[in-house]
Amino acid sequence: MSSTPAHRRQPSLSNPRVQRTRTRILTIARELLPEVGPTGLTYALLAERADVTRQTLYRHWPNRTALLFDLMLDGPEIGDYPEPSSDVRAAVTAWLRSLRAGATIPAMRTALLAVLAQAEHHPDSAQALARIGGDRRAALNDVIKPSGVQIDADEYTLLYGPVLARLLLDRGPITDEFIDSVVAQWLGALRCTGAVPHGDY
Amino acid sequence: MSSTPAHRRQPSLSNPRVQRTRTRILTIARELLPEVGPTGLTYALLAERADVTRQTLYRHWPNRTALLFDLMLDGPEIGDYPEPSSDVRAAVTAWLRSLRAGATIPAMRTALLAVLAQAEHHPDSAQALARIGGDRRAALNDVIKPSGVQIDADEYTLLYGPVLARLLLDRGPITDEFIDSVVAQWLGALRCTGAVPHGDY
Repeated sequence: MSSTPAHRRQPSLSNPRVQRTRTRILTIARELLPEVGPTGLTYALLAERADVTRQTLYRHWPNRTALLFDLMLDGPEIGDYPEPSSDVRAAVTAWLRSLRAGATIPAMRTALLAVLAQAEHHPDSAQALARIGGDRRAALNDVIKPSGVQIDADEYTLLYGPVLARLLLDRGPITDEFIDSVVAQWLGALRCTGAVPHGDY
Repeated sequence: MSSTPAHRRQPSLSNPRVQRTRTRILTIARELLPEVGPTGLTYALLAERADVTRQTLYRHWPNRTALLFDLMLDGPEIGDYPEPSSDVRAAVTAWLRSLRAGATIPAMRTALLAVLAQAEHHPDSAQALARIGGDRRAALNDVIKPSGVQIDADEYTLLYGPVLARLLLDRGPITDEFIDSVVAQWLGALRCTGAVPHGDY
């Protein structure tokens, strides 16, 4: 037995059992969240539904913000990122479709909106959001690396911003046609700034 | 005296005294909101701070969603909409700057995020949001009418989406340079689709 008190131990994600428990809890939280809302998703409720102790929850997520971030990030869509490609148009189209797949899961949207609201008041959440954006842009740059094109922060926002707005504000469906329009506009601007030579995509 | 019971009377906004009271309550609500959050902005608290009865609040806003919508829409930036112009670039740039002016008011952002979260669960809020988007697009189309260009729903989202994303998700400043990039990209796409003849702006 470990000499570290149980409530201080960090769960080891290299342990398959711990990983399974974590995934199971996140799945249940994802089912509950749209129904009860972010403030209704208490550790008491989640512990009861997942049949674990609250201590277990606190070991995985020291606070609810950490849980909401994981609900937003650790969706079932993760892993559907497109393969690296020299075809920028195909790659960013696949990227936006993967974003759409994640964003149409109600719990992902609820978690995202809760985190955005928290970021208004908690600098830690705001920084975590900015860091996630940076990580996602780096991942997209890995995908399109074979093309020789790399995207800066402004170009990244120009790409995903309209999809986010259609989802959260317009509350309309993100059709394939809309994604094609976003990509066409975005590629046109890349070409104008010289980031992509004419005819290269 | 009116024979209608006081609690059933709708406040008449053509009455300057009623209008002043309404504006004063909204100003106080706007100060309180970032501090107490949307759930903390109770009618009890607002009535106390604005020195009105809760009945007065309910007459103006039958529910808190109505109040949040007014906080989001009735900001001090309203009225700064650009003048109609045949110069599309100048007009949409001024438009996005006016959007930025509104969105950098903490209470506007807090109200917006609260309304977005409500729209996840309440079809009425979702419909109201979509209607506001339609109204704003119509207003922008009035502004650029002298140019002969008119914007459809997708083009509108392509224009404002990146500004929204920079504000809420990236949590970065919306610089003049960023707005210029958004407008340049957007005009490029308009040109490609033939909505604006070359050289017309």
